[in-house]
Amino acid sequence: MSITPESHILCDLNEPLVDHTEGQLFLNDTFKIIMEEVLCKGTDIKHKVCEWKEPKELALLLDLELRATGEPQHRLLQRVQDVAKYSIKTSHPRFMNQQFGGVDYHALAGRFLTEALNTNLYTYEVAPVFVLMEAEVLRGLRQLVGWTEGDGLFCPGGSASNMYAMNIARYQHFPEVKSQGLCGLPRLNIFTSSDSHYSVKKGAAFLGIGTDNVIIVEVDEGGRMIPDDLDEKITLAKSQGAVPFFVSCTSGTTVRGAFDPLDLIADVCEKHKLWMHVDHYLIHKIKVYVKNIFLIFGISACPQDLLRKCHSANATYLFQQDKFYDLNLDVGDKSVQCSRKVDCLKLWLMWKAVGSIGFAERVDKAFNQARYLVEQMKKREGFHLLQEPEFVNVCFWFIPPSMRGKEGMADYQDRLAKVAPVIKERMMKQGTMMVGYQPLGNKVNFFRMVVFSPLLTQKDMDFFLDEIERLGKDL
Amino acid sequence: MSITPESHILCDLNEPLVDHTEGQLFLNDTFKIIMEEVLCKGTDIKHKVCEWKEPKELALLLDLELRATGEPQHRLLQRVQDVAKYSIKTSHPRFMNQQFGGVDYHALAGRFLTEALNTNLYTYEVAPVFVLMEAEVLRGLRQLVGWTEGDGLFCPGGSASNMYAMNIARYQHFPEVKSQGLCGLPRLNIFTSSDSHYSVKKGAAFLGIGTDNVIIVEVDEGGRMIPDDLDEKITLAKSQGAVPFFVSCTSGTTVRGAFDPLDLIADVCEKHKLWMHVDHYLIHKIKVYVKNIFLIFGISACPQDLLRKCHSANATYLFQQDKFYDLNLDVGDKSVQCSRKVDCLKLWLMWKAVGSIGFAERVDKAFNQARYLVEQMKKREGFHLLQEPEFVNVCFWFIPPSMRGKEGMADYQDRLAKVAPVIKERMMKQGTMMVGYQPLGNKVNFFRMVVFSPLLTQKDMDFFLDEIERLGKDL
Repeated sequence: MSITPESHILCDLNEPLVDHTEGQLFLNDTFKIIMEEVLCKGTDIKHKVCEWKEPKELALLLDLELRATGEPQHRLLQRVQDVAKYSIKTSHPRFMNQQFGGVDYHALAGRFLTEALNTNLYTYEVAPVFVLMEAEVLRGLRQLVGWTEGDGLFCPGGSASNMYAMNIARYQHFPEVKSQGLCGLPRLNIFTSSDSHYSVKKGAAFLGIGTDNVIIVEVDEGGRMIPDDLDEKITLAKSQGAVPFFVSCTSGTTVRGAFDPLDLIADVCEKHKLWMHVDHYLIHKIKVYVKNIFLIFGISACPQDLLRKCHSANATYLFQQDKFYDLNLDVGDKSVQCSRKVDCLKLWLMWKAVGSIGFAERVDKAFNQARYLVEQMKKREGFHLLQEPEFVNVCFWFIPPSMRGKEGMADYQDRLAKVAPVIKERMMKQGTMMVGYQPLGNKVNFFRMVVFSPLLTQKDMDFFLDEIERLGKDL
Repeated sequence: MSITPESHILCDLNEPLVDHTEGQLFLNDTFKIIMEEVLCKGTDIKHKVCEWKEPKELALLLDLELRATGEPQHRLLQRVQDVAKYSIKTSHPRFMNQQFGGVDYHALAGRFLTEALNTNLYTYEVAPVFVLMEAEVLRGLRQLVGWTEGDGLFCPGGSASNMYAMNIARYQHFPEVKSQGLCGLPRLNIFTSSDSHYSVKKGAAFLGIGTDNVIIVEVDEGGRMIPDDLDEKITLAKSQGAVPFFVSCTSGTTVRGAFDPLDLIADVCEKHKLWMHVDHYLIHKIKVYVKNIFLIFGISACPQDLLRKCHSANATYLFQQDKFYDLNLDVGDKSVQCSRKVDCLKLWLMWKAVGSIGFAERVDKAFNQARYLVEQMKKREGFHLLQEPEFVNVCFWFIPPSMRGKEGMADYQDRLAKVAPVIKERMMKQGTMMVGYQPLGNKVNFFRMVVFSPLLTQKDMDFFLDEIERLGKDL
């Protein structure tokens, strides 16, 4: 694949290198494949959720290798078809594997338009529509939680949002950290529960705070942070010379969907003067918060001006001070990134399409659907809930017929631990559905069904239970 | 916009909340608007690059406010139309404002498909195609620079890539930093040139190293880092008790497009045992590197295993150890993010379409086009190059007729500084083209034309010069 000067095609400087007619034809054909394979078949229960292949076989089928010469259009369209075919259909009603799933056509339309417009959210001059739109979406989100002021950014994911929060809180406690770094500062401590997302630890490592300085607070039987334990651990940390500065609570934990008691934690934070962060960000009004978890992913909200003060670098090549418009519209210096993708359009268009009421409807439906699933489980033998769900995460063990009533057996837990992985392997190889499992603390592997997708119906819930029974009946 | 329980629509659990037929119709209509407004008109020189509106007027035109109730489809399509109309046409041949521009239809098709498939690049089970594809694209990129091994990730932009590099280098020097943080470690120093990208400083602040610990190395008259100055500053830093660990070079600086002398800098790094990082990553083979700058954006490459060791958190809910496939395919723990967008498909499809030879052709054409522009400038009065371009960044002052031959005047530099902002304002308000300007050190505002887009023709170059003359002739 070496590139030698001889292999170059002499180019005509009077012609563009891109053929618009041919290119647009290709895009049009790709769009048709997307419609057919991803959005029609990919959301149809008559078709599979996944077309499982072993990695080596899949690599051969896809012919991934990159070469010196290009390929004709029909070959490229076949590749588009193959990528669609062998990818997981996350929009399929029976994809219940993660905390995302389903499809919203307005959001998807917004994303296509975003990609086609291909700009960067750092200055008003290159992103006039999106600078204003992002501000409005953030305002709308603040309004949903009852905040009249604040600031925010769309970030590339929840982990980045958590890191932003830590960095801003650190800056507020120690503004000198921006220029001088952590060297010379006392040891900083972050507090979060044992059920919080692992990005808190990752973020602490990345920001130079260190994972050992993330102090794990205990949770109650429902997976909620225990405020008294938090209080004690903060006091202990101080007595050991550390400087606590940040408490990361979670509203809707990853596995169990638990809600930390924010009001009680707020009292502890107030007492010790710590920054209280909520992973998922929309605090104090759980009901309304819940209405947004389906949407909010990668958004940070924080007090005004702090983002800019904490992150600005004042690059003169981008944020020229002699521009002819209000420089506050050049939002790029609030971010730790330079180029930043436009993420607001999809949410804005969806919001315009369904309204806040439409969001509420989705949330209600998800709750009702989760409740239906739990009721059905209780009517069947073999489904054992980890706990009564507080949210739309339904965590449970499936006990195969051969193990029922034998809880006293010595190897019961060992055997139970192996059930979920085998059922998971079977469902993926048959392509009928996808759902996640995991262990948690001393609890062996259990399934976690997150009832998220607006596509789900009662029939899908019934199918889900039937399918687990079918796949696990001989274990 | 409050959401009360009474306002909820009672939902039928037997029906999905999404109407596929209506949704697909909307997506289809949106696609037509994208084709017409963004890709046909938006790349046609008979249409404007931008439709300038003052922020307040634009906000009114767009009716951004988010409300409780949704809107009908025809109204939403009008919104799609408006967003397209008032957004900057970055694919237009006369958008020369940033280091991106133009359109590649295969890449765009890849991005549409990526959005429709809507998955996450953390496990093989949810992204089988893309786990394998990302590895192949990274392998292909390493091959282009002559590396037979290594590791990498697609990151959400160049700033994030720089941060990854700093974090990994820090971890290699001090593995304990991951768990213990910087507290107790000596002061760390990073070295980069005065012309390097501001993300180096932003990254140092974010990682807890501090902007003061980014030591600025001087550049020569062409904007290239001076290795002797680097050597001296490393020695000085050590004598002051700091621990140098990281040198960030740049291959193609943001403003002048200068290339730091990598071989000489490598000698200095070798002598002091420092991590040498190249912003844009593909080192040692400038010619080949150059062939990729058009593509590589947000990619990090580093020695094998280090990414995983440095960033792993081993979350058991996602990276279960009892899966039925090779766990090395769950690449998510190499990243500081949890969810990570798929960025490899667009590059893979483009590479399949044009081959490495096609990339080379684009690079050659851009260089030839830049050379043509410089030649034409020299033939005209009033265009004064900042320096002979080393790359495709052509930096120049436009001297209006009234100022020509008056370099000796006391207020000459002050007057010259005001020329570019006025021309820029005029071109944006008329919508004829977009190009950036900035000051640099003691050099007052100059234009920076980056000859990047594969759409550019000689006619566009001629137009560019004519238009600058037209807009600035009365100044």
